[in-house]
Amino acid sequence: MRKNERYSPVPGTDKPVEIIDIKGIEDIGYVQQDSIILNSLTPEENTRCRHGLYFQDGQRRVDYVLTYPVKKPGSSRSRRHTSLLTDNAFARSLRRARGPAPAPGPRPSPEDPEAGSPGHGMDCHEDDKRSRREEFEGHLTDMGLELEKDEDTKTPGVGFVKIHAPWNILCREAEFMKLKMPTKKVYEVKNGSSVVEKINTFIHKVTEPLHPNVEENRTQSLKHLSYPFSREKQHLFDLSDRDSFFDSKTRSSIVFEVLKRTKCTKAKYSMGKLMKFAPNSSKLTLKCSSLSCPPGITSLLGSGVYLAAYPLHDLMYEEWASYSVFYKYQPISLIRKYFGEKIGLYFAWLGVYTQMLIPASLVGVIVFLYGCVTVDDDIPSMEICDVRKNFTMCPLCDRVCSYWNLSSACATARASHLFDNPATVFFSIFMALWAAMFMEHWKRRQMRLNYEWDLTGFEEEEDHPRAEYEFRVLQKTLKKEHKSQKAEKEKLTCKDRFPAYMTNIVMMLLMIGVTFAIVFGVILYRISTKAALHMSSNPTTRSNVRLTVKATAAIINLVVILILDEVYGAVARWLTVLEVPKTDGSFEERLIFKTFILKFVNAFTPIIYIAFFRGRLGGRPGSYLYVFESYRMEECASGGCLMELCIQLSITMLGKQLIQNNLFEIGVPKLKKLIRYIKSKRASFQEEEREKRLQRYETDYFLEPYAGLTPEYMEMIIQFGFVTLFVASFPLAPLFALLNNIIEIRLDAKKFVAELRRPVAARAKDIGIWYNILRGVAKVAVIVNAFVISFTSDFIPRLVYQYMYSPDGSMHGFVNHTLSYFNVSHFQNGTQPIEPLYLGYQVEICRYKDYREPPWSSTPYEISKEFWTVLAVRLAFVIVFQNVVMWMSDIVDWLIPDIPKDISLQIHKEKILMVDLFMKEEQGKLHVLDSLVSAAAKEHGGRNTACECVCAPRHSYLCHNIPVSPV
Amino acid sequence: MRKNERYSPVPGTDKPVEIIDIKGIEDIGYVQQDSIILNSLTPEENTRCRHGLYFQDGQRRVDYVLTYPVKKPGSSRSRRHTSLLTDNAFARSLRRARGPAPAPGPRPSPEDPEAGSPGHGMDCHEDDKRSRREEFEGHLTDMGLELEKDEDTKTPGVGFVKIHAPWNILCREAEFMKLKMPTKKVYEVKNGSSVVEKINTFIHKVTEPLHPNVEENRTQSLKHLSYPFSREKQHLFDLSDRDSFFDSKTRSSIVFEVLKRTKCTKAKYSMGKLMKFAPNSSKLTLKCSSLSCPPGITSLLGSGVYLAAYPLHDLMYEEWASYSVFYKYQPISLIRKYFGEKIGLYFAWLGVYTQMLIPASLVGVIVFLYGCVTVDDDIPSMEICDVRKNFTMCPLCDRVCSYWNLSSACATARASHLFDNPATVFFSIFMALWAAMFMEHWKRRQMRLNYEWDLTGFEEEEDHPRAEYEFRVLQKTLKKEHKSQKAEKEKLTCKDRFPAYMTNIVMMLLMIGVTFAIVFGVILYRISTKAALHMSSNPTTRSNVRLTVKATAAIINLVVILILDEVYGAVARWLTVLEVPKTDGSFEERLIFKTFILKFVNAFTPIIYIAFFRGRLGGRPGSYLYVFESYRMEECASGGCLMELCIQLSITMLGKQLIQNNLFEIGVPKLKKLIRYIKSKRASFQEEEREKRLQRYETDYFLEPYAGLTPEYMEMIIQFGFVTLFVASFPLAPLFALLNNIIEIRLDAKKFVAELRRPVAARAKDIGIWYNILRGVAKVAVIVNAFVISFTSDFIPRLVYQYMYSPDGSMHGFVNHTLSYFNVSHFQNGTQPIEPLYLGYQVEICRYKDYREPPWSSTPYEISKEFWTVLAVRLAFVIVFQNVVMWMSDIVDWLIPDIPKDISLQIHKEKILMVDLFMKEEQGKLHVLDSLVSAAAKEHGGRNTACECVCAPRHSYLCHNIPVSPV
Repeated sequence: MRKNERYSPVPGTDKPVEIIDIKGIEDIGYVQQDSIILNSLTPEENTRCRHGLYFQDGQRRVDYVLTYPVKKPGSSRSRRHTSLLTDNAFARSLRRARGPAPAPGPRPSPEDPEAGSPGHGMDCHEDDKRSRREEFEGHLTDMGLELEKDEDTKTPGVGFVKIHAPWNILCREAEFMKLKMPTKKVYEVKNGSSVVEKINTFIHKVTEPLHPNVEENRTQSLKHLSYPFSREKQHLFDLSDRDSFFDSKTRSSIVFEVLKRTKCTKAKYSMGKLMKFAPNSSKLTLKCSSLSCPPGITSLLGSGVYLAAYPLHDLMYEEWASYSVFYKYQPISLIRKYFGEKIGLYFAWLGVYTQMLIPASLVGVIVFLYGCVTVDDDIPSMEICDVRKNFTMCPLCDRVCSYWNLSSACATARASHLFDNPATVFFSIFMALWAAMFMEHWKRRQMRLNYEWDLTGFEEEEDHPRAEYEFRVLQKTLKKEHKSQKAEKEKLTCKDRFPAYMTNIVMMLLMIGVTFAIVFGVILYRISTKAALHMSSNPTTRSNVRLTVKATAAIINLVVILILDEVYGAVARWLTVLEVPKTDGSFEERLIFKTFILKFVNAFTPIIYIAFFRGRLGGRPGSYLYVFESYRMEECASGGCLMELCIQLSITMLGKQLIQNNLFEIGVPKLKKLIRYIKSKRASFQEEEREKRLQRYETDYFLEPYAGLTPEYMEMIIQFGFVTLFVASFPLAPLFALLNNIIEIRLDAKKFVAELRRPVAARAKDIGIWYNILRGVAKVAVIVNAFVISFTSDFIPRLVYQYMYSPDGSMHGFVNHTLSYFNVSHFQNGTQPIEPLYLGYQVEICRYKDYREPPWSSTPYEISKEFWTVLAVRLAFVIVFQNVVMWMSDIVDWLIPDIPKDISLQIHKEKILMVDLFMKEEQGKLHVLDSLVSAAAKEHGGRNTACECVCAPRHSYLCHNIPVSPV
Repeated sequence: MRKNERYSPVPGTDKPVEIIDIKGIEDIGYVQQDSIILNSLTPEENTRCRHGLYFQDGQRRVDYVLTYPVKKPGSSRSRRHTSLLTDNAFARSLRRARGPAPAPGPRPSPEDPEAGSPGHGMDCHEDDKRSRREEFEGHLTDMGLELEKDEDTKTPGVGFVKIHAPWNILCREAEFMKLKMPTKKVYEVKNGSSVVEKINTFIHKVTEPLHPNVEENRTQSLKHLSYPFSREKQHLFDLSDRDSFFDSKTRSSIVFEVLKRTKCTKAKYSMGKLMKFAPNSSKLTLKCSSLSCPPGITSLLGSGVYLAAYPLHDLMYEEWASYSVFYKYQPISLIRKYFGEKIGLYFAWLGVYTQMLIPASLVGVIVFLYGCVTVDDDIPSMEICDVRKNFTMCPLCDRVCSYWNLSSACATARASHLFDNPATVFFSIFMALWAAMFMEHWKRRQMRLNYEWDLTGFEEEEDHPRAEYEFRVLQKTLKKEHKSQKAEKEKLTCKDRFPAYMTNIVMMLLMIGVTFAIVFGVILYRISTKAALHMSSNPTTRSNVRLTVKATAAIINLVVILILDEVYGAVARWLTVLEVPKTDGSFEERLIFKTFILKFVNAFTPIIYIAFFRGRLGGRPGSYLYVFESYRMEECASGGCLMELCIQLSITMLGKQLIQNNLFEIGVPKLKKLIRYIKSKRASFQEEEREKRLQRYETDYFLEPYAGLTPEYMEMIIQFGFVTLFVASFPLAPLFALLNNIIEIRLDAKKFVAELRRPVAARAKDIGIWYNILRGVAKVAVIVNAFVISFTSDFIPRLVYQYMYSPDGSMHGFVNHTLSYFNVSHFQNGTQPIEPLYLGYQVEICRYKDYREPPWSSTPYEISKEFWTVLAVRLAFVIVFQNVVMWMSDIVDWLIPDIPKDISLQIHKEKILMVDLFMKEEQGKLHVLDSLVSAAAKEHGGRNTACECVCAPRHSYLCHNIPVSPV
């Protein structure tokens, strides 16, 4: 809570309306004309912010922070307060340029790579780390970065290296990364024809209060042409304000890129571990330089040389990370500007999903209400409730239960109708198409964002290998070298990974087996408890049996799911670490895949059991199926299993959402932060005073490190499963999901802004594997819904009865048709009810729900023709439903173009504009050159040859800025 | 044939082995070290080639040719032999630079846009065209292209404009188009680990004779780093040989790009037509400039200002376009180098498809052989052939047919087994997976080609609007303007297109209706002929009835399909023209879609009828279904309809391939060329002499214009349909397809090289809509095969009999089980056979193939329980098959990464290399600068300030080439 206070915005003062409510902004990279609205910091806040966000000189921004352990806080040797480099870039570059010259000049700094000899560096682990740090930092300054160390902080035991990227480094790296930057050229975006434009304007006006109160939405009709940044084409860009040309997220990702790339030539890394494999490797360091050493910060973080690496928070949103604006759109562009495209896409996706849930939940509620309204007109439930019909049913359990009257199941039958009516068939078709629409809508939104964020043309590239992978490769190489004396660059083959793969498969199967076992255990619990409670002599207990058993079983299921969810998350991570994937991307993908399978199985196994197996394995009176030879398998209550499915679904979904999201997501990070804070508090004592003067890079250090978006996405995907998979049985699922997500968005926002360290901005064009998983879930949903409708619900039997067997084409007589006859004299010995006269009369024939021949037919209790007819129709329905929905989805997919038309038009227009711009510029330059040449020819005669000499090899392009110096 | 002679290569002379067999090459853009192998032209050929390929000066290459009609061959006014421009690029650019200056200087050329006043230009249509040509060509020279006119050719009535793009125009446009060009930096491509490399080497060695005998395959391990061409980074590229840096296809596509972009400011275009809508538009020309006039060559070609536009052929392949190398791989890289990526991808795709057909046809043959081998062990056909079983069957037609013995169908039953055995089930699963594998394999191949062809990062962009579209927009705007006096940029809305869309829908439905009607007509033909022939008293006629009818019906079907194919192609094109799509891309897509639907329906409707409807609509004895109240619907021969399906399939497929491909594809272009040639021959007389001296641009003019790849792809897709859709019934389809394709590849190659004008090289990353269509066909194939196996074949009834009804678990008694009983006394009046004693005994009960209750049951002739059981199992099989195969395909899709691992690694490596290169260069330059500065400081004192002034604003990058001139 204390932390939140710090991050909360200043109460609104008497500023003009134009000012938006963003606090603590300095450099989101707004174009100049917008900059007026961004300086809304109060003076004292401003200084406090600047204090932590800048170098000691107050000029150079901290773009990145590395922290490292300081074991001896008193050691003044490694403490340095001044920047390692002078500011004079020219002089520095000269020095660097002289560096690689062959002449062995005097080395200016002690952190020379070769100076630390192998024997010297190994005597102390701590010293080793420090020397590697020094080497790494030396390389960083060689790359042009500027560093400032700070060990004298209020946080004991932690040293900070603040990194600043000067202008020309930013330019160079932006060019290498092919970052598209806005040029000076501005053009107006027209929204298609006048009609469309009018509609858009109208919609925009109507939804005005829903838009976040930020600048973003006002200047949408003007767009800067973007072009990959290039130092030769600097004249294209508006560089008047160099400080804000690259925004903070770009700066930090540029620095991160350099950090990743910078090699550590001394691969003494994890030497201790290596010694196990190559005990005689005294020449290890020499060899190591011939191997490709793992580059960059990742391996240093992995081996503990640095503790953490993060950019600084410098901004927070009132218009986003607050529950009070739950009804508004999100300021996606600002989120992207601050957190980068990857996180921006997550929130955009979450927004689209939540938005799409609105129509789904509306229709779901209507379907539910339709069920409520029509419950009194439903003939089958009327027949069940009709006491005069007097169906005597066979007992539900052996011996202790007796015959019962179907009319006693009246309430259940009526409740079933709420979820089992023709509208649900329509609803599941609707939801399948909804899922397809959602996918399409998202694809288009993604494309639009790609365009708006200038990501068109950007290609995701393979990451650098992970530190663990490089370490394994090093191990393997050393081992092999030890054997064959042949130094060859190795990589991990399938053979190396075989044990890990086997462990993976075995563990995955084991985990799935555990889930199945637990579901089976819960079934056993239900059967045995029911039997036990039935035996009890207390009549009130017996009457409450069903309710008690259902409720406890569902809660047990929920608790097990929650516990296993956490366990499975950990297991999946452990298994993925075992696999040693090569890159971060592959690590993430494998982890996601495993986690998804485990969590999905965990969440849906009990539900699938209830939907498709429960009540089907029980056998028939006189030949029941027994588990462990004493417990009869459960049957569904009359009225179908749909009701029970519905109860199970709602408990699991609501429970998961309430407990996992709110308790875990809010509670756990808070707890962790508290623990971290208390730990560091113990070490020092002047906490109150320190608290106030903590620098920004220190406060950020206490935050939880950013751990990727996987948990956020995973949660939403599982929810998407609940919304689509069994929607035929629970039309209110979208509504619950919607309510949850409205909170979820702001919850995640708060978490990212206030609970986590600022993540490095990552570029991404799409949501990656998640899209495929979504597609997969939507595909499975079609099949599952087809089966739920045709097998779990009574839809098909009713249809068949009405059109094939009903004497008058109505539903009258349906209940009688679905019940088979059983002659009570055919009960197995010892299974007859002990109270045969419970209903008050002698029972000779009891009824049970199945399609079987009556006792008086030539083949008693055999499966009847009706059964096969209904089965054939059920299967035909599945085929028709699956294919119709699948092809409809495909048609939706195909009809809606992936790239919105206006976007593709604009991309085309931009290209033409760019060519125009270049052509004009070229002609302008020719013109200038022409006048220069003629002027020079007039005045000096022979002087112009020099100029031509400069220009000729590069064809008129470079003469742009050349001042003809009148010598 | 004459033409072919010209294109055929010179017989091999005594050159060293290193020389590859490519003739007529000058500038495929080989890197310098390869150039030695390319000069394999004999001297006289060389001069002949150069004659047509170069300007009159023999220096400047013809990159593009425009032809225009010359109505008065005597008019010397418009004849020009000299290039319109001087060669001095510097002087020209000066003139151009002076052009747009505000001072009204004297216009140098008569083709000034404003000089041609509207009234003046309209008095003569021919003059109008000429003036527009002159204006357009003026713009082209303004853009920097160099032109040469040639009206004095041997081809009367046609004038030629030859276009040459000089070096700096090529550079400029390559930069705008972001063409990736090879840099000087070369690196070695390692083929993964040693094991993989060894395997690859081994495979390569084994397949050595299969590889085309071209340079391509030898230098694969070295690759030039590619980088988007930029004039500022010229030092990166190897520009030592400027003539070959851009190859001919790049040059022509660059010129085409300029041609497309160049605007015609005088939009007098189609003025005659416009006058209909705006008769009072004397100020039309003035207005027109405010409208955006349709840019470029497309509209000029559309309005007949130019006749044709094409680049020149300059190369032909012996190693490709020849039947004698049918067993070899194609030299895809050379195809791409010559025709561009789009056509290269087509041939690569065709190659992959053909290659993939090899395993498919192997397995297909094995499955067929399995059928042949097991035919004697097949119990059902043994039972049918067993005379002792003596099943008396009900008559096949009313009155004239009599009862018959099932054993007379022995041969059909045995033949059926060849295609209807358990192996076909396996084979259709195999083929579904094969299709998935094919898709994946292609995706990977495409990715690899993208990488090899430096297309990574290239984005397909929206085309310029088509001329027809622009014309319609202009019409609409003028009409509106006429009404409301408001000049606004218009576009075609749905309302404008509504009539076209309606026509489209109606016509498509009509065409599909026609197909259905024709299929129905053939059915009627079959029924009626059969009835008529049955009535004939000639016994030999009657015994040949079945064969005659089947054969004629199949041939009629084939002929109808072939004719309708052509009709539908034309209809689809006409409908698409009606729609007025905006861009060429959209035109192509719509055309493809319509053509595909029509051709697909056309090819497969008769087959689908036979597979799923024939024999199912006939009713049962005593209550047959009659068409036109007299003809009974057909039944299948005993042994299932699969046999007939198989016959129909093979006739359609083989007939289509033989006739369409060979007759149409080879014959028709030859015929057209002949006609064109004869036409022009009539006009002049010295044909023999002319023939020898024709310039290259003249011979190319007589070729058929390139009309897109649509027909080629379409043919293959329909074939793919035959291969996958009904593969369960015809396992030999892949084999026939393979044989056809081996010829098809070389046929297409010959066509592209010798029969068509050279197409403009188009860049493309993928095969576009065809991939989606392939996916769609593969998806449909799964469902169709599921239905063929479960409904058309006897697979499921056998299975059900064996596991549910067979007394001993064997197939004995199966035939009896499938035949129902009919009491002959229940025949309708007048339908009894007139020869009831045909078989020699009195028949009381006859049998028919159906699952119905016997006459003695309580519900005679009702559908029996067995029917429902079999139906349920059939449907269950469809569900299981479809889902299993679908998910297996998805898993295949998911398991095989889209981007081959080595490619993604190499892309990553290239990026690192590029950054390294830049960093090194930068340091090198700093070093040079440093020494310069210090040298200058020593010598001149103040002189170095000027240099700094040059370099400072661009940060050290541009100082690269500056010679410090010692004034």
